Amino acid sequence: MDKEKFIISKFENKFIGDDGAVVGNYVYSKDIFLENTHFKRGWLSDYEIGKKAMLINISDIIVMNAVPKYVLLGLMIPRNMEFAKIIELKKGIKEVCDKFGVVIIGGDTVGSNLLGISVSVIGFSKKAIFRNAMKKGEILAFTGNLGSSLKGLRALQNGGKIGKNSRFRNIILRDKFFYKASKFINSAMDISDGLASDLPKFIRDKNIKFLKNLSKFEFLSGEEYEILFSFNKKHKFRIINEAKRARINLKIFGETTYGKYKKRARSWHF
Amino acid sequence: MDKEKFIISKFENKFIGDDGAVVGNYVYSKDIFLENTHFKRGWLSDYEIGKKAMLINISDIIVMNAVPKYVLLGLMIPRNMEFAKIIELKKGIKEVCDKFGVVIIGGDTVGSNLLGISVSVIGFSKKAIFRNAMKKGEILAFTGNLGSSLKGLRALQNGGKIGKNSRFRNIILRDKFFYKASKFINSAMDISDGLASDLPKFIRDKNIKFLKNLSKFEFLSGEEYEILFSFNKKHKFRIINEAKRARINLKIFGETTYGKYKKRARSWHF
Repeated sequence: MDKEKFIISKFENKFIGDDGAVVGNYVYSKDIFLENTHFKRGWLSDYEIGKKAMLINISDIIVMNAVPKYVLLGLMIPRNMEFAKIIELKKGIKEVCDKFGVVIIGGDTVGSNLLGISVSVIGFSKKAIFRNAMKKGEILAFTGNLGSSLKGLRALQNGGKIGKNSRFRNIILRDKFFYKASKFINSAMDISDGLASDLPKFIRDKNIKFLKNLSKFEFLSGEEYEILFSFNKKHKFRIINEAKRARINLKIFGETTYGKYKKRARSWHF
Repeated sequence: MDKEKFIISKFENKFIGDDGAVVGNYVYSKDIFLENTHFKRGWLSDYEIGKKAMLINISDIIVMNAVPKYVLLGLMIPRNMEFAKIIELKKGIKEVCDKFGVVIIGGDTVGSNLLGISVSVIGFSKKAIFRNAMKKGEILAFTGNLGSSLKGLRALQNGGKIGKNSRFRNIILRDKFFYKASKFINSAMDISDGLASDLPKFIRDKNIKFLKNLSKFEFLSGEEYEILFSFNKKHKFRIINEAKRARINLKIFGETTYGKYKKRARSWHF
């Protein structure tokens, strides 16, 4: 058992285990984005770090079918970080907040050895979508394309460089598609650790059959923040239609049925 | 300008600058409690670290006159931290949650070089009390006694030891007194950085006269999490009465009036 699972097991209650916690019409999410754990400072500019920290949190709210409203911002700022770099970081954070109409209502700033951003997002949802509401005979799909983020990460880990448009730098959230398609969607989560690690969390004790082969990179790439979701077969063409309208790719790859799903890789968190 | 002030100035809006952010009847607070910034691991047991991280956050909610309800818990866990120590940390966190009837609804756990706890608390208030609602001719007071926490800290910094009952280890929140007295209180905040640093934030551009002398330790001690508050003169005996009932000390030390207040020490955050 890894430490994250161990800790989650110690705090278990009905709210925990989804991308966000639902209390009435409010949805709350929290993520920590930490230097040397989630990024290295040479890999991303401070502006990109600010952007990414916000986007991965807002992603959690969107996949719960909630609209992000407010943010509590916790900043761990290295003592030697120059003011100009702090302004860059802030620019990335602010840009995402403005794009999604999110207001920063409070937070905390502490001196630290490492750069870190702890974000809590407060969203509002009329009808939340959970990650484990899936039934038998449902179709599994994900938005966009998986693989490129991991390729970028591998290049960086090997001392290489990645382009300005690399998915590792640029997270594209699928909010427009998802909100529109949400009435046909039964379960959803964002793919943040890679399908190999996230799919078992999504299907839990259910079985699936694969309708399409997925590449190793599609399985392991973890930071596109694409949406993994399921829907009733009868809505297949509606879902495809909404994806077309939103001009995004869709990969329909599985169906909940018989046959045991095997986890193909270990998570690489701790 | 220090980095914390600089960052706050960059994000300024009507919600920011109090212990918690008020949205409707909800009050949100967030604090990061970080190794080597706020504590050293040798100074407190993991159990005490867990307790303190929770109490300093719940304190922010209480001084807004709100009741803490839910918590989002962000844990930065050193990769070499043993499971037994994680259980101790969890015990401290859980004990405080149970005492205040607070439910942990979600969070994030990440591997880190440093132990850190980022807590967001969601509270509910019928009538929030802010830190800057004070008028001229109001009385200033704080709960309990100030000084002992800094004495504990100094002892630890000099390689000494502190007892089990040291205020540095044990934060005592004044929730019962404060909720009871709240209808007579106009402004409040918790003293978390020391009166020398917090008093200017509290009175802002107002002037005060001191009714009593305060010692250097009373000015500089920052971690008792006692409550600094103000009230109309006419409620003085009601306030004293509520303090007696709750069996806590009260130090009535100032009055908003003429005469410029001078900040007596620099904050030692960054």
